[in-house]
Amino acid sequence: MRDSRAIPGLDLHLDLDRHRKAASLEETLRDAVRGRRLEAGTRLPASRTLAADLGIARNVVADVYGRLVAEGWLEARVGAGTWVAERVGGAAATSGTEPAALLTRPGLDLRGGIPDASSFPRREWATAARRAALDLPASAFGYGPRFGSPALRATLAEYLGRTRGVWANGAGIAVTRGFGAALATVARALVSQGARRIAVEEYGHEAHRGILRAAGLDVVALAVDEDGAVISELAGLAVDAVLLTPAHQFPTGVALSPSRRLEVVAWAERSGALVIEDDYDGEFRYDRRAIGALQSLAPDLVVYLGTASKSLAPAVGLGWAVVPERLATGFAEQVAAVNGIADALNQSTLDAFMTAHEYDRTVRRRRAEYRSRRLLLEERVADALPGCRVSGMRAGLHCLIELPAGVDERAVTGAAAQLGVRFDGLGSFRLDASIGRAPRARRPPAMVAGYGAPAPHRFAAALDRAIAAIRAELGTSTATDRS
Amino acid sequence: MRDSRAIPGLDLHLDLDRHRKAASLEETLRDAVRGRRLEAGTRLPASRTLAADLGIARNVVADVYGRLVAEGWLEARVGAGTWVAERVGGAAATSGTEPAALLTRPGLDLRGGIPDASSFPRREWATAARRAALDLPASAFGYGPRFGSPALRATLAEYLGRTRGVWANGAGIAVTRGFGAALATVARALVSQGARRIAVEEYGHEAHRGILRAAGLDVVALAVDEDGAVISELAGLAVDAVLLTPAHQFPTGVALSPSRRLEVVAWAERSGALVIEDDYDGEFRYDRRAIGALQSLAPDLVVYLGTASKSLAPAVGLGWAVVPERLATGFAEQVAAVNGIADALNQSTLDAFMTAHEYDRTVRRRRAEYRSRRLLLEERVADALPGCRVSGMRAGLHCLIELPAGVDERAVTGAAAQLGVRFDGLGSFRLDASIGRAPRARRPPAMVAGYGAPAPHRFAAALDRAIAAIRAELGTSTATDRS
Repeated sequence: MRDSRAIPGLDLHLDLDRHRKAASLEETLRDAVRGRRLEAGTRLPASRTLAADLGIARNVVADVYGRLVAEGWLEARVGAGTWVAERVGGAAATSGTEPAALLTRPGLDLRGGIPDASSFPRREWATAARRAALDLPASAFGYGPRFGSPALRATLAEYLGRTRGVWANGAGIAVTRGFGAALATVARALVSQGARRIAVEEYGHEAHRGILRAAGLDVVALAVDEDGAVISELAGLAVDAVLLTPAHQFPTGVALSPSRRLEVVAWAERSGALVIEDDYDGEFRYDRRAIGALQSLAPDLVVYLGTASKSLAPAVGLGWAVVPERLATGFAEQVAAVNGIADALNQSTLDAFMTAHEYDRTVRRRRAEYRSRRLLLEERVADALPGCRVSGMRAGLHCLIELPAGVDERAVTGAAAQLGVRFDGLGSFRLDASIGRAPRARRPPAMVAGYGAPAPHRFAAALDRAIAAIRAELGTSTATDRS
Repeated sequence: MRDSRAIPGLDLHLDLDRHRKAASLEETLRDAVRGRRLEAGTRLPASRTLAADLGIARNVVADVYGRLVAEGWLEARVGAGTWVAERVGGAAATSGTEPAALLTRPGLDLRGGIPDASSFPRREWATAARRAALDLPASAFGYGPRFGSPALRATLAEYLGRTRGVWANGAGIAVTRGFGAALATVARALVSQGARRIAVEEYGHEAHRGILRAAGLDVVALAVDEDGAVISELAGLAVDAVLLTPAHQFPTGVALSPSRRLEVVAWAERSGALVIEDDYDGEFRYDRRAIGALQSLAPDLVVYLGTASKSLAPAVGLGWAVVPERLATGFAEQVAAVNGIADALNQSTLDAFMTAHEYDRTVRRRRAEYRSRRLLLEERVADALPGCRVSGMRAGLHCLIELPAGVDERAVTGAAAQLGVRFDGLGSFRLDASIGRAPRARRPPAMVAGYGAPAPHRFAAALDRAIAAIRAELGTSTATDRS
């Protein structure tokens, strides 16, 4: 006799043998985790709930969970419940029932610009979503304003003015589907107004360069030094716009210096070009008050782009653009060309979340957490990596670990991967597209250390492994030097 | 002495005079509604809640609400609470305190293709959003798969297979930000593969044609008759693709006949062109089982596009595309070109909503409601409009009311607007872009009657006014005929 039913809260069907429910529950769960039908991080129902749903005793379910935790398939913590454990690679997934391979804890992520998902304010977001669903005016359920919910835009205007010094009223702000969508819209609007070429910082995200190219722009590189992007190069590049990360250069971690901020504004004024300000993590500064947005210096010349992806999580799926008058028509046309955005429920959730001050609270809480990670990172590098140096402002979710000359970044990335850590070299962010001149010298080797992504209890482990990976290569390069 | 505080749940500050709280609450609310700081449809806090927050007696708040309801600023219904009333135009908003103009009930909407916001399952959506926020695996908070949440894609594959006969597994489905975003992505993918021209049905949405043109396609018209789009014309149009509404032509309301379904598949096979199936309201059929999707006949030749905007509400902001192998790479590139979609919380909410069977329940409940509206509409037209005829399948959210020759659609639209009803003529959906031949004859006059949008208690009133608007013009045209 079999008893087939779904496990509530999981996309999983149980096909339990009535005479051995405990054993078949255990087998089903183990198979589902091993076969990755249950993804790492998935929360299991409380044993009490599952027991009630299956009509078996609670201690039977608790025993099954306990055995699977012991085997390494699940993880549990008092007060936090039980979830599917993370594992290395795909090998363990298919190699029989032996979970020995699981004892190495895997999937650590030290890439830059990724916030800690484990600290996402789930309950507060759920409350905001509930309020949005219950309170959204009936008129907002239809095809809404192209620039997004007026309420959210007003809330963002207030927030950006207060925290970043951005000049905006609700009218000039557009809610977008994250930074990428905003950048794509700006780029297409520029092209529709005749733009052909854009400068980006020599080190940055290839995904952003891809978005610009897909819109039809030629993308050229602007050098970056310890004062940020080298603005004086712009005059020689004959570009219609420049994409900058003034508050916190990604990935080198420096700020655009005050004189260069004035310089870029003067250049834009003189040349009629547009500045796109990517203010992806401007909320996070640990050693002093954050520098305000470049946009506040010249609201007519700068498009300001921000996102909830770093402050909250990419899963929120929302960003914002403050669009100057001169780009407003083109921007609106490009939004219309993809039918605008009409996820009023999601936008209203973010609005409820912000007006309940949960956004501020989340940023404050995370600022404290990231700050302590940053200090730990500096300490460990100083202790364990002679000849290496941490650089970049005490801000955001990443910094550089500068390596001695001759160390191969890619070898460090490889060594880290073997230890289960994703850890990128600076060179992987480089655009080599100098125009009409000899290619620039590469910068000395460095690793981009993102300290945002790991859960708090795993950050130290991730850091230790990254340091071990660098040490291994320091040894090699020293050995090579000696030989 | 003044006592300043926010009204919880509303974006509204109260500045109450302590010695006359009731009067100042009443004035503040009236001013906020009149000045449209409180939008029509906004729900007010329960009198009990607001009284507790303000520290005044509940009956004081209830009295204030009662007076404002009596004046027409607010509406109330037992069990449904109190909300801001809808009003005509902007005049009343600024013309002093006299709400007499409000007595005409305004803002009725008989446009096609808009679902009833008042029946949106707010509580069930809130529950799904809560579950999504609490249960989303930590790994899904980051930058997710470009085609969207694997869990939602699997759920959609099951749903579309079951209800629409669509051939899909999770892999071929992409979650999109509504129909418009999906169409834009498909159009750009086509252009990137060399497509230059697309046919659309002669009657349809100008917004969709705009999206196709923005992607770089020439848009040409395909005639529509009682069997749907005239497929035989395709061979002469030299197009690379065609956009069709096979299950329920918008706005004429006919279905693509069985023989034409086969004909368009044969054409696509022969010519190498692609068929884009816009299945916007395939769930709603009232007289018989719905016809399956065209995609099921030829999954390799058809891109299937669907949306939650008609079945639930545009505010959900999600749609889906089932992409054939031949377009998969181009589609993925275009998704990448705007950085994909990563609103995992929103997607997971829809998934939780669907797996809790609330999507099915909503469709079933609305089907019953829309069916009775459709029958009422047919009855009233038969009774009150001699010489007029309802046409279009008993399906979806709209039909045609065919008018006697000589009646001016635009005059009916104008007369309806004066009665506070939005009501479009068939001609406003026409694309006049015949290529290399004499323009086609216009169809006889007809109004597109959308019966989805009004709240249930207001549908009959909206219908009566639309009928009155037509009667007014019937009289005129008869008078003209006589003269």
